[in-house]
Amino acid sequence: MPVYLNGAYLDKAAARVSVDDRGFLFGDGVYEVTRARAGRLFAGDRHLLRLERGMQELELRWPEGLDAAGLAAVSERLLRENDLGEGDAMVYVQITRGGEGTPRTHVFPGPGTPPTVYAAASRFTPPDDARTRGAAAITVPDLRWGRCDLKTIQLLPNVLAKQRAAAAGAYDAVQVRDGIVTEGAHTNVFALLGGVLRTHPAGPRILPGITREIVLELARELELTTSEEPIPAAELPRAAEVFFTGTTTDVMPVVRLDGHALGGGRPGPVAGQLQAKLLERLHATTTGVTPAGR
Amino acid sequence: MPVYLNGAYLDKAAARVSVDDRGFLFGDGVYEVTRARAGRLFAGDRHLLRLERGMQELELRWPEGLDAAGLAAVSERLLRENDLGEGDAMVYVQITRGGEGTPRTHVFPGPGTPPTVYAAASRFTPPDDARTRGAAAITVPDLRWGRCDLKTIQLLPNVLAKQRAAAAGAYDAVQVRDGIVTEGAHTNVFALLGGVLRTHPAGPRILPGITREIVLELARELELTTSEEPIPAAELPRAAEVFFTGTTTDVMPVVRLDGHALGGGRPGPVAGQLQAKLLERLHATTTGVTPAGR
Repeated sequence: MPVYLNGAYLDKAAARVSVDDRGFLFGDGVYEVTRARAGRLFAGDRHLLRLERGMQELELRWPEGLDAAGLAAVSERLLRENDLGEGDAMVYVQITRGGEGTPRTHVFPGPGTPPTVYAAASRFTPPDDARTRGAAAITVPDLRWGRCDLKTIQLLPNVLAKQRAAAAGAYDAVQVRDGIVTEGAHTNVFALLGGVLRTHPAGPRILPGITREIVLELARELELTTSEEPIPAAELPRAAEVFFTGTTTDVMPVVRLDGHALGGGRPGPVAGQLQAKLLERLHATTTGVTPAGR
Repeated sequence: MPVYLNGAYLDKAAARVSVDDRGFLFGDGVYEVTRARAGRLFAGDRHLLRLERGMQELELRWPEGLDAAGLAAVSERLLRENDLGEGDAMVYVQITRGGEGTPRTHVFPGPGTPPTVYAAASRFTPPDDARTRGAAAITVPDLRWGRCDLKTIQLLPNVLAKQRAAAAGAYDAVQVRDGIVTEGAHTNVFALLGGVLRTHPAGPRILPGITREIVLELARELELTTSEEPIPAAELPRAAEVFFTGTTTDVMPVVRLDGHALGGGRPGPVAGQLQAKLLERLHATTTGVTPAGR
Protein backbone atom coordinates (compact mmCIF):
# COMPACT_ATOMS: atom_id res chain seq x y z
CA MET A 1 0.00 0.00 0.00
CA PRO A 2 1.97 3.02 -1.19
CA VAL A 3 1.82 6.29 0.71
CA TYR A 4 3.42 9.61 -0.13
CA LEU A 5 6.17 11.10 2.03
CA ASN A 6 8.21 14.15 1.01
CA GLY A 7 8.14 13.55 -2.72
CA ALA A 8 8.42 9.75 -2.68
CA TYR A 9 5.81 7.02 -3.05
CA LEU A 10 6.72 4.15 -0.78
CA ASP A 11 5.28 1.33 1.24
CA LYS A 12 3.74 2.55 4.47
CA ALA A 13 6.04 0.35 6.54
CA ALA A 14 8.96 2.25 5.01
CA ALA A 15 7.37 5.68 5.55
CA ARG A 16 9.12 6.98 8.64
CA VAL A 17 9.86 10.43 9.97
CA SER A 18 12.76 11.71 12.02
CA VAL A 19 12.37 11.87 15.80
CA ASP A 20 13.24 15.56 15.29
CA ASP A 21 10.07 16.10 13.26
CA ARG A 22 8.07 18.89 14.87
CA GLY A 23 4.91 16.92 14.20
CA PHE A 24 6.26 14.26 16.57
CA LEU A 25 7.76 16.65 19.15
CA PHE A 26 5.30 19.57 19.23
CA GLY A 27 2.16 18.61 17.30
CA ASP A 28 3.28 21.42 14.99
CA GLY A 29 1.28 20.76 11.83
CA VAL A 30 -2.03 20.71 9.99
CA TYR A 31 -3.98 17.96 8.26
CA GLU A 32 -7.05 17.19 6.15
CA VAL A 33 -9.18 14.12 5.58
CA THR A 34 -10.93 14.22 2.20
CA ARG A 35 -13.63 11.86 1.02
CA ALA A 36 -13.22 10.21 -2.37
CA ARG A 37 -15.56 8.23 -4.54
CA ALA A 38 -14.86 6.51 -7.82
CA GLY A 39 -11.26 7.69 -7.52
CA ARG A 40 -12.22 11.36 -7.36
CA LEU A 41 -11.99 13.76 -4.43
CA PHE A 42 -15.19 15.19 -3.00
CA ALA A 43 -14.99 18.91 -2.17
CA GLY A 44 -11.25 18.65 -2.63
CA ASP A 45 -10.88 22.39 -3.32
CA ARG A 46 -12.56 23.32 -0.05
CA HIS A 47 -10.29 20.99 1.91
CA LEU A 48 -7.21 22.46 0.25
CA LEU A 49 -8.38 26.02 0.92
CA ARG A 50 -8.79 25.18 4.61
CA LEU A 51 -5.38 23.49 4.65
CA GLU A 52 -3.75 26.56 3.11
CA ARG A 53 -5.50 28.88 5.56
CA GLY A 54 -4.12 26.78 8.44
CA MET A 55 -0.65 26.83 6.92
CA GLN A 56 -0.83 30.59 6.63
CA GLU A 57 -1.91 31.03 10.24
CA LEU A 58 0.93 28.80 11.43
CA GLU A 59 3.46 30.23 8.95
CA LEU A 60 3.96 26.82 7.35
CA ARG A 61 5.25 26.87 3.79
CA TRP A 62 4.91 24.43 0.93
CA PRO A 63 8.12 22.55 0.15
CA GLU A 64 9.82 23.38 -3.12
CA GLY A 65 7.97 21.91 -6.07
CA LEU A 66 4.65 21.30 -4.29
CA ASP A 67 1.49 23.36 -3.94
CA ALA A 68 -2.21 22.75 -3.35
CA ALA A 69 -2.81 21.58 -6.93
CA GLY A 70 0.19 19.28 -6.67
CA LEU A 71 -1.11 17.77 -3.45
CA ALA A 72 -4.47 17.12 -5.15
CA ALA A 73 -2.58 15.28 -7.90
CA VAL A 74 -0.69 13.29 -5.26
CA SER A 75 -4.00 12.37 -3.62
CA GLU A 76 -5.48 11.17 -6.92
CA ARG A 77 -2.38 9.16 -7.72
CA LEU A 78 -2.59 7.51 -4.28
CA LEU A 79 -6.20 6.57 -4.99
CA ARG A 80 -5.16 4.95 -8.27
CA GLU A 81 -2.11 3.17 -6.91
CA ASN A 82 -4.09 1.79 -3.98
CA ASP A 83 -6.81 0.38 -6.26
CA LEU A 84 -9.36 2.84 -4.91
CA GLY A 85 -10.67 3.85 -8.33
CA GLU A 86 -14.10 2.52 -7.40
CA GLY A 87 -16.28 2.86 -4.34
CA ASP A 88 -15.69 4.95 -1.22
CA ALA A 89 -12.24 5.95 -0.02
CA MET A 90 -10.55 8.71 1.90
CA VAL A 91 -7.29 10.58 1.59
CA TYR A 92 -5.34 11.80 4.61
CA VAL A 93 -2.79 14.61 4.15
CA GLN A 94 -0.60 16.16 6.83
CA ILE A 95 1.98 18.95 6.72
CA THR A 96 4.28 19.54 9.67
CA ARG A 97 7.08 22.04 10.19
CA GLY A 98 9.66 19.27 9.66
CA GLY A 99 12.85 19.84 11.61
CA GLU A 100 15.08 16.82 10.94
CA GLY A 101 18.58 17.61 12.13
CA THR A 102 17.59 20.78 14.01
CA PRO A 103 17.85 21.08 17.80
CA ARG A 104 14.59 20.77 19.73
CA THR A 105 13.46 24.26 20.59
CA HIS A 106 10.01 25.83 20.60
CA VAL A 107 11.13 28.59 18.21
CA PHE A 108 10.60 27.82 14.51
CA PRO A 109 13.66 26.29 12.83
CA GLY A 110 15.44 28.29 10.13
CA PRO A 111 13.52 29.30 6.99
CA GLY A 112 15.39 26.70 4.91
CA THR A 113 13.95 23.80 6.94
CA PRO A 114 11.66 21.82 4.64
CA PRO A 115 8.22 20.85 5.97
CA THR A 116 7.19 17.21 6.13
CA VAL A 117 4.37 16.29 3.75
CA TYR A 118 2.62 12.96 4.24
CA ALA A 119 -0.40 11.59 2.38
CA ALA A 120 -2.18 8.23 2.38
CA ALA A 121 -5.34 6.85 0.78
CA SER A 122 -7.47 4.08 2.23
CA ARG A 123 -10.75 2.28 1.75
CA PHE A 124 -13.66 3.84 3.59
CA THR A 125 -16.91 2.23 4.67
CA PRO A 126 -19.57 4.82 5.53
CA PRO A 127 -21.14 4.13 8.95
CA ASP A 128 -24.53 3.34 7.43
CA ASP A 129 -25.58 0.79 10.03
CA ALA A 130 -25.21 3.31 12.83
CA ARG A 131 -27.01 5.84 10.62
CA THR A 132 -30.02 3.58 10.15
CA ARG A 133 -30.34 2.84 13.87
CA GLY A 134 -29.31 6.31 14.99
CA ALA A 135 -26.23 6.96 17.10
CA ALA A 136 -25.64 7.42 20.81
CA ALA A 137 -23.61 10.38 22.10
CA ILE A 138 -22.27 11.59 25.42
CA THR A 139 -21.51 15.14 26.53
CA VAL A 140 -18.01 16.03 27.73
CA PRO A 141 -16.34 19.30 28.71
CA ASP A 142 -14.62 20.98 25.75
CA LEU A 143 -10.98 21.12 26.91
CA ARG A 144 -9.44 22.21 23.62
CA TRP A 145 -7.28 25.22 22.91
CA GLY A 146 -8.34 28.63 21.64
CA ARG A 147 -7.81 27.98 17.92
CA CYS A 148 -10.18 25.12 17.17
CA ASP A 149 -10.79 26.77 13.78
CA LEU A 150 -7.40 25.47 12.63
CA LYS A 151 -7.27 21.81 11.63
CA THR A 152 -4.03 21.10 13.49
CA ILE A 153 -2.71 17.85 14.89
CA GLN A 154 -3.28 19.22 18.43
CA LEU A 155 -5.76 16.38 18.82
CA LEU A 156 -5.21 14.91 22.27
CA PRO A 157 -8.38 16.44 23.77
CA ASN A 158 -10.35 15.10 20.78
CA VAL A 159 -8.72 11.69 21.27
CA LEU A 160 -9.67 11.64 24.95
CA ALA A 161 -13.24 12.76 24.21
CA LYS A 162 -13.70 10.16 21.47
CA GLN A 163 -12.20 7.46 23.69
CA ARG A 164 -14.69 8.32 26.44
CA ALA A 165 -17.50 8.12 23.88
CA ALA A 166 -16.30 4.75 22.59
CA ALA A 167 -15.96 3.41 26.14
CA ALA A 168 -19.59 4.44 26.72
CA GLY A 169 -20.69 2.70 23.51
CA ALA A 170 -21.36 6.07 21.85
CA TYR A 171 -20.51 7.23 18.33
CA ASP A 172 -19.03 10.55 19.37
CA ALA A 173 -18.82 13.05 22.21
CA VAL A 174 -20.66 16.39 22.20
CA GLN A 175 -18.19 18.93 23.56
CA VAL A 176 -19.58 21.65 25.80
CA ARG A 177 -17.78 24.87 26.72
CA ASP A 178 -19.32 27.42 29.10
CA GLY A 179 -22.68 25.67 28.74
CA ILE A 180 -22.61 25.89 24.93
CA VAL A 181 -22.43 22.95 22.51
CA THR A 182 -19.34 23.53 20.37
CA GLU A 183 -18.85 20.36 18.30
CA GLY A 184 -18.07 16.63 18.41
CA ALA A 185 -14.60 15.12 18.80
CA HIS A 186 -14.38 14.75 14.99
CA THR A 187 -17.75 16.13 13.84
CA ASN A 188 -19.90 19.25 13.96
CA VAL A 189 -23.24 19.24 15.79
CA PHE A 190 -26.62 20.39 14.48
CA ALA A 191 -29.93 20.59 16.39
CA LEU A 192 -33.45 21.24 15.17
CA LEU A 193 -34.94 23.52 17.82
CA GLY A 194 -38.30 25.26 17.43
CA GLY A 195 -38.28 24.50 13.72
CA VAL A 196 -34.86 26.11 13.20
CA LEU A 197 -31.80 24.07 12.23
CA ARG A 198 -29.02 25.43 14.41
CA THR A 199 -25.27 24.89 14.61
CA HIS A 200 -22.46 26.75 16.37
CA PRO A 201 -21.26 29.81 14.43
CA ALA A 202 -17.87 29.65 12.74
CA GLY A 203 -15.08 31.18 14.82
CA PRO A 204 -12.16 30.09 17.00
CA ARG A 205 -14.25 27.63 19.04
CA ILE A 206 -15.12 25.18 16.25
CA LEU A 207 -13.60 23.72 13.14
CA PRO A 208 -15.35 25.10 10.05
CA GLY A 209 -16.33 21.64 8.84
CA ILE A 210 -16.61 21.15 5.09
CA THR A 211 -19.59 18.84 5.58
CA ARG A 212 -21.09 21.38 8.02
CA GLU A 213 -20.84 24.02 5.28
CA ILE A 214 -22.32 21.75 2.62
CA VAL A 215 -25.13 20.65 4.93
CA LEU A 216 -26.02 24.30 5.57
CA GLU A 217 -26.17 24.83 1.80
CA LEU A 218 -28.32 21.73 1.33
CA ALA A 219 -30.64 22.79 4.17
CA ARG A 220 -31.22 26.11 2.39
CA GLU A 221 -31.92 24.23 -0.84
CA LEU A 222 -34.53 22.28 1.14
CA GLU A 223 -35.89 25.64 2.33
CA LEU A 224 -35.24 24.83 5.96
CA THR A 225 -34.69 27.75 8.31
CA THR A 226 -31.06 27.67 9.46
CA SER A 227 -29.23 29.68 12.06
CA GLU A 228 -25.57 29.71 13.00
CA GLU A 229 -26.21 30.50 16.62
CA PRO A 230 -24.85 28.80 19.75
CA ILE A 231 -26.89 25.92 21.16
CA PRO A 232 -27.03 25.82 24.96
CA ALA A 233 -26.33 22.26 26.10
CA ALA A 234 -29.41 22.47 28.31
CA GLU A 235 -31.60 22.80 25.19
CA LEU A 236 -30.30 19.66 23.45
CA PRO A 237 -32.60 17.19 25.26
CA ARG A 238 -35.67 18.93 23.86
CA ALA A 239 -34.42 19.20 20.27
CA ALA A 240 -36.68 17.55 17.69
CA GLU A 241 -33.51 16.24 16.02
CA VAL A 242 -29.80 16.29 16.73
CA PHE A 243 -27.16 15.12 14.29
CA PHE A 244 -23.42 15.04 13.72
CA THR A 245 -21.82 15.98 10.40
CA GLY A 246 -18.34 15.18 9.16
CA THR A 247 -16.25 13.93 6.29
CA THR A 248 -16.28 10.31 7.48
CA THR A 249 -19.65 10.69 9.21
CA ASP A 250 -21.88 12.37 6.60
CA VAL A 251 -25.09 13.18 8.48
CA MET A 252 -25.43 10.99 11.57
CA PRO A 253 -28.66 11.22 13.57
CA VAL A 254 -28.18 11.15 17.35
CA VAL A 255 -30.96 9.27 19.13
CA ARG A 256 -29.48 8.93 22.61
CA LEU A 257 -27.59 11.50 24.66
CA ASP A 258 -25.98 10.56 27.97
CA GLY A 259 -28.26 7.51 28.12
CA HIS A 260 -31.53 9.35 27.46
CA ALA A 261 -33.61 9.11 24.29
CA LEU A 262 -33.35 12.13 22.00
CA GLY A 263 -35.89 13.20 19.38
CA GLY A 264 -38.19 10.28 20.18
CA GLY A 265 -35.28 7.82 20.10
CA ARG A 266 -35.43 7.44 16.29
CA PRO A 267 -33.58 9.07 13.39
CA GLY A 268 -35.57 12.09 12.26
CA PRO A 269 -36.74 13.14 8.79
CA VAL A 270 -34.54 16.24 8.47
CA ALA A 271 -31.35 14.26 9.06
CA GLY A 272 -32.60 11.71 6.53
CA GLN A 273 -33.33 14.33 3.87
CA LEU A 274 -29.97 16.03 4.35
CA GLN A 275 -28.13 12.72 4.18
CA ALA A 276 -29.91 11.88 0.91
CA LYS A 277 -29.08 15.30 -0.57
CA LEU A 278 -25.46 14.97 0.58
CA LEU A 279 -25.07 11.57 -1.09
CA GLU A 280 -26.67 13.00 -4.22
CA ARG A 281 -24.10 15.79 -4.32
CA LEU A 282 -21.26 13.37 -3.51
CA HIS A 283 -22.27 11.10 -6.36
CA ALA A 284 -22.88 13.94 -8.79
CA THR A 285 -19.53 15.55 -8.07
CA THR A 286 -17.53 12.38 -8.29
CA THR A 287 -19.20 10.95 -11.38
CA GLY A 288 -19.79 14.20 -13.20
CA VAL A 289 -23.50 13.38 -13.50
CA THR A 290 -25.68 16.33 -12.50
CA PRO A 291 -28.67 15.24 -10.45
CA ALA A 292 -32.10 15.99 -11.89
CA GLY A 293 -33.48 19.43 -11.16
CA ARG A 294 -30.19 21.27 -10.66
CA MET B 1 25.40 10.84 18.70
CA PRO B 2 23.39 7.83 19.91
CA VAL B 3 19.77 8.25 20.97
CA TYR B 4 17.38 5.67 22.42
CA LEU B 5 14.33 4.50 20.52
CA ASN B 6 12.17 1.56 21.61
CA GLY B 7 14.92 -0.46 23.22
CA ALA B 8 17.71 0.32 20.76
CA TYR B 9 20.60 2.79 20.91
CA LEU B 10 21.18 4.19 17.46
CA ASP B 11 22.41 7.21 15.61
CA LYS B 12 19.87 10.01 15.60
CA ALA B 13 19.75 10.07 11.80
CA ALA B 14 18.57 6.45 11.96
CA ALA B 15 16.00 7.11 14.70
CA ARG B 16 12.73 7.30 12.82
CA VAL B 17 9.14 6.63 13.74
CA SER B 18 6.25 5.34 11.68
CA VAL B 19 3.91 7.87 10.05
CA ASP B 20 1.23 5.94 12.00
CA ASP B 21 2.77 7.00 15.31
CA ARG B 22 0.12 8.76 17.39
CA GLY B 23 2.75 11.25 18.48
CA PHE B 24 3.02 12.35 14.85
CA LEU B 25 -0.72 12.13 14.01
CA PHE B 26 -2.43 13.29 17.23
CA GLY B 27 0.20 14.76 19.58
CA ASP B 28 -0.78 11.81 21.78
CA GLY B 29 2.10 11.59 24.23
CA VAL B 30 4.02 13.02 27.17
CA TYR B 31 7.61 14.16 27.61
CA GLU B 32 10.17 15.43 30.11
CA VAL B 33 13.33 17.50 29.87
CA THR B 34 15.73 16.77 32.75
CA ARG B 35 18.85 18.70 33.61
CA ALA B 36 22.07 16.78 34.11
CA ARG B 37 25.44 17.76 35.49
CA ALA B 38 28.60 15.71 35.72
CA GLY B 39 26.71 12.85 34.07
CA ARG B 40 24.02 12.74 36.78
CA LEU B 41 20.36 13.71 36.55
CA PHE B 42 19.13 16.64 38.63
CA ALA B 43 15.75 16.02 40.32
CA GLY B 44 15.38 12.96 38.11
CA ASP B 45 12.90 11.32 40.47
CA ARG B 46 10.57 14.30 40.37
CA HIS B 47 10.61 14.37 36.56
CA LEU B 48 9.82 10.65 36.40
CA LEU B 49 6.99 11.01 38.93
CA ARG B 50 5.45 13.76 36.77
CA LEU B 51 5.94 11.64 33.65
CA GLU B 52 4.19 8.70 35.27
CA ARG B 53 1.33 10.88 36.47
CA GLY B 54 0.84 12.11 32.89
CA MET B 55 0.96 8.54 31.59
CA GLN B 56 -1.69 7.54 34.11
CA GLU B 57 -3.99 10.41 33.16
CA LEU B 58 -3.66 9.55 29.46
CA GLU B 59 -3.80 5.77 30.05
CA LEU B 60 -0.35 5.32 28.51
CA ARG B 61 1.50 2.20 29.60
CA TRP B 62 5.18 1.36 29.81
CA PRO B 63 6.35 -1.05 27.14
CA GLU B 64 7.33 -4.52 28.28
CA GLY B 65 10.68 -4.49 30.05
CA LEU B 66 10.81 -0.76 30.80
CA ASP B 67 9.74 1.31 33.79
CA ALA B 68 10.69 4.64 35.38
CA ALA B 69 13.90 3.24 36.90
CA GLY B 70 14.81 1.71 33.56
CA LEU B 71 14.26 5.02 31.80
CA ALA B 72 16.56 6.73 34.32
CA ALA B 73 19.21 4.12 33.49
CA VAL B 74 18.68 4.78 29.77
CA SER B 75 19.12 8.51 30.41
CA GLU B 76 22.38 7.96 32.30
CA ARG B 77 23.70 5.66 29.61
CA LEU B 78 22.88 8.29 26.97
CA LEU B 79 24.85 10.85 28.98
CA ARG B 80 27.84 8.50 29.07
CA GLU B 81 27.67 7.47 25.43
CA ASN B 82 27.38 11.08 24.31
CA ASP B 83 30.44 12.12 26.32
CA LEU B 84 28.34 14.23 28.66
CA GLY B 85 29.94 12.91 31.83
CA GLU B 86 31.18 16.40 32.64
CA GLY B 87 29.53 19.80 32.59
CA ASP B 88 25.92 20.69 31.88
CA ALA B 89 23.65 18.56 29.75
CA MET B 90 19.99 17.72 29.37
CA VAL B 91 18.02 14.59 28.66
CA TYR B 92 14.82 14.60 26.64
CA VAL B 93 12.39 11.68 26.99
CA GLN B 94 9.08 11.22 25.21
CA ILE B 95 6.46 8.47 25.35
CA THR B 96 3.68 8.34 22.78
CA ARG B 97 0.83 5.89 22.28
CA GLY B 98 2.67 4.32 19.32
CA GLY B 99 0.32 2.92 16.70
CA GLU B 100 2.51 1.62 13.87
CA GLY B 101 0.41 -0.53 11.59
CA THR B 102 -2.92 0.54 13.13
CA PRO B 103 -5.54 2.53 11.19
CA ARG B 104 -5.74 6.24 12.00
CA THR B 105 -8.67 6.70 14.35
CA HIS B 106 -9.07 8.94 17.40
CA VAL B 107 -9.95 5.94 19.59
CA PHE B 108 -6.99 4.32 21.37
CA PRO B 109 -5.49 1.38 19.45
CA GLY B 110 -5.75 -2.11 20.96
CA PRO B 111 -4.15 -2.76 24.36
CA GLY B 112 -1.35 -4.77 22.72
CA THR B 113 -0.07 -1.71 20.81
CA PRO B 114 3.37 -0.85 22.21
CA PRO B 115 4.06 2.80 23.03
CA THR B 116 6.96 4.62 21.42
CA VAL B 117 9.75 5.57 23.83
CA TYR B 118 12.36 8.05 22.64
CA ALA B 119 15.22 9.57 24.63
CA ALA B 120 18.17 11.79 23.72
CA ALA B 121 20.90 13.57 25.64
CA SER B 122 22.59 16.77 24.54
CA ARG B 123 25.01 19.43 25.72
CA PHE B 124 23.35 22.33 27.48
CA THR B 125 24.63 25.85 27.95
CA PRO B 126 22.74 27.72 30.69
CA PRO B 127 21.53 31.13 29.46
CA ASP B 128 23.83 32.99 31.85
CA ASP B 129 24.41 36.01 29.62
CA ALA B 130 20.71 36.77 29.46
CA ARG B 131 20.54 36.16 33.20
CA THR B 132 23.23 38.74 33.93
CA ARG B 133 21.58 41.40 31.76
CA GLY B 134 18.03 40.40 32.65
CA ALA B 135 15.56 39.17 30.07
CA ALA B 136 12.81 40.81 28.08
CA ALA B 137 9.31 39.31 27.94
CA ILE B 138 6.07 39.96 26.13
CA THR B 139 2.53 39.13 27.22
CA VAL B 140 0.32 36.96 24.99
CA PRO B 141 -3.14 35.45 25.43
CA ASP B 142 -2.99 31.94 26.90
CA LEU B 143 -4.62 29.83 24.16
CA ARG B 144 -3.77 26.42 25.58
CA TRP B 145 -6.11 23.58 26.41
CA GLY B 146 -7.69 22.73 29.77
CA ARG B 147 -5.03 20.27 30.99
CA CYS B 148 -1.88 22.37 31.10
CA ASP B 149 -0.91 20.38 34.22
CA LEU B 150 0.01 17.46 31.95
CA LYS B 151 3.37 17.68 30.20
CA THR B 152 2.04 16.54 26.84
CA ILE B 153 3.34 17.20 23.34
CA GLN B 154 0.27 19.41 22.68
CA LEU B 155 2.75 22.25 22.30
CA LEU B 156 1.63 24.28 19.30
CA PRO B 157 0.27 27.18 21.38
CA ASN B 158 3.54 27.23 23.32
CA VAL B 159 5.47 27.18 20.03
CA LEU B 160 3.46 30.11 18.69
CA ALA B 161 3.88 32.08 21.93
CA LYS B 162 7.64 31.46 22.06
CA GLN B 163 7.98 32.34 18.37
CA ARG B 164 6.21 35.67 19.00
CA ALA B 165 8.56 36.31 21.92
CA ALA B 166 11.62 35.49 19.84
CA ALA B 167 10.40 37.71 16.99
CA ALA B 168 10.09 40.54 19.53
CA GLY B 169 13.61 39.90 20.83
CA ALA B 170 12.23 38.55 24.12
CA TYR B 171 13.32 35.50 26.10
CA ASP B 172 9.83 34.13 26.66
CA ALA B 173 6.14 35.05 26.55
CA VAL B 174 4.04 35.57 29.68
CA GLN B 175 0.73 33.87 28.98
CA VAL B 176 -2.39 35.56 30.31
CA ARG B 177 -5.80 33.92 30.68
CA ASP B 178 -8.83 35.84 31.92
CA GLY B 179 -6.54 38.63 33.11
CA ILE B 180 -4.38 36.24 35.16
CA VAL B 181 -0.73 35.41 34.53
CA THR B 182 -0.55 31.63 34.09
CA GLU B 183 3.00 30.83 32.98
CA GLY B 184 5.58 31.27 30.21
CA ALA B 185 5.71 29.26 26.98
CA HIS B 186 8.26 26.91 28.59
CA THR B 187 8.68 28.42 32.07
CA ASN B 188 6.73 29.32 35.21
CA VAL B 189 6.38 32.95 36.27
CA PHE B 190 7.08 34.44 39.72
CA ALA B 191 6.50 38.03 40.87
CA LEU B 192 7.55 39.81 44.04
CA LEU B 193 4.54 41.94 44.95
CA GLY B 194 4.21 43.81 48.23
CA GLY B 195 7.07 41.76 49.68
CA VAL B 196 5.38 38.44 48.85
CA LEU B 197 6.83 36.07 46.24
CA ARG B 198 3.84 34.91 44.25
CA THR B 199 3.28 32.33 41.51
CA HIS B 200 0.16 30.78 39.99
CA PRO B 201 -1.24 27.92 42.11
CA ALA B 202 -0.86 24.37 40.80
CA GLY B 203 -3.92 23.11 38.94
CA PRO B 204 -5.09 22.49 35.37
CA ARG B 205 -3.98 25.93 34.12
CA ILE B 206 -0.24 25.53 34.64
CA LEU B 207 2.43 22.91 34.43
CA PRO B 208 3.67 22.03 37.92
CA GLY B 209 7.24 22.94 37.08
CA ILE B 210 9.97 21.02 38.89
CA THR B 211 12.10 24.18 39.07
CA ARG B 212 9.02 26.11 40.27
CA GLU B 213 8.64 23.60 43.09
CA ILE B 214 12.33 23.70 44.02
CA VAL B 215 12.38 27.53 43.88
CA LEU B 216 9.42 27.62 46.29
CA GLU B 217 11.37 25.34 48.65
CA LEU B 218 14.49 27.50 48.35
CA ALA B 219 12.46 30.68 48.94
CA ARG B 220 11.16 29.20 52.20
CA GLU B 221 14.74 28.28 53.17
CA LEU B 222 15.58 31.94 52.56
CA GLU B 223 12.62 32.83 54.81
CA LEU B 224 10.86 34.72 52.05
CA THR B 225 7.09 34.97 52.25
CA THR B 226 5.63 32.92 49.38
CA SER B 227 2.11 32.57 48.14
CA GLU B 228 0.68 30.34 45.41
CA GLU B 229 -1.99 32.79 44.41
CA PRO B 230 -2.93 34.08 40.95
CA ILE B 231 -1.15 37.22 39.75
CA PRO B 232 -3.36 39.65 37.80
CA ALA B 233 -1.51 40.70 34.64
CA ALA B 234 -2.33 44.30 35.51
CA GLU B 235 -0.18 44.00 38.67
CA LEU B 236 2.96 42.78 36.89
CA PRO B 237 4.25 46.25 35.88
CA ARG B 238 4.49 47.29 39.53
CA ALA B 239 6.19 44.13 40.79
CA ALA B 240 9.54 44.72 42.50
CA GLU B 241 10.85 41.65 40.64
CA VAL B 242 9.52 39.26 38.04
CA PHE B 243 11.31 36.09 36.98
CA PHE B 244 10.86 32.93 34.94
CA THR B 245 11.83 29.49 36.24
CA GLY B 246 12.41 26.30 34.28
CA THR B 247 14.64 23.31 33.73
CA THR B 248 16.66 24.99 30.97
CA THR B 249 16.07 28.49 32.36
CA ASP B 250 16.89 28.17 36.08
CA VAL B 251 15.86 31.54 37.56
CA MET B 252 15.71 34.21 34.86
CA PRO B 253 15.04 37.80 35.93
CA VAL B 254 12.68 39.72 33.65
CA VAL B 255 13.63 43.37 33.29
CA ARG B 256 11.43 44.42 30.37
CA LEU B 257 7.80 43.56 29.73
CA ASP B 258 6.12 44.56 26.47
CA GLY B 259 8.85 47.15 25.95
CA HIS B 260 8.60 48.79 29.40
CA ALA B 261 11.20 48.50 32.15
CA LEU B 262 10.24 46.16 34.98
CA GLY B 263 11.61 46.24 38.53
CA GLY B 264 13.85 49.20 37.76
CA GLY B 265 15.11 47.59 34.56
CA ARG B 266 17.77 45.53 36.38
CA PRO B 267 17.88 41.97 37.73
CA GLY B 268 16.73 42.02 41.36
CA PRO B 269 18.34 40.56 44.50
CA VAL B 270 15.68 37.91 45.18
CA ALA B 271 16.09 36.34 41.73
CA GLY B 272 19.85 36.43 42.27
CA GLN B 273 19.68 34.72 45.66
CA LEU B 274 17.33 32.04 44.39
CA GLN B 275 19.52 31.38 41.36
CA ALA B 276 22.57 31.00 43.64
CA LYS B 277 20.70 28.58 45.93
CA LEU B 278 19.42 26.62 42.94
CA LEU B 279 22.93 26.21 41.52
CA GLU B 280 24.12 25.16 44.97
CA ARG B 281 21.50 22.44 45.10
CA LEU B 282 22.18 21.40 41.52
CA HIS B 283 25.88 21.04 42.25
CA ALA B 284 25.35 19.30 45.58
CA THR B 285 22.94 16.78 44.13
CA THR B 286 25.02 15.95 41.11
CA THR B 287 28.38 15.73 42.87
CA GLY B 288 27.16 14.18 46.10
CA VAL B 289 28.76 17.03 48.06
CA THR B 290 26.38 18.51 50.63
CA PRO B 291 26.65 22.28 50.76
CA ALA B 292 27.73 23.78 54.08
CA GLY B 293 24.98 24.34 56.62
CA ARG B 294 22.55 21.68 55.39
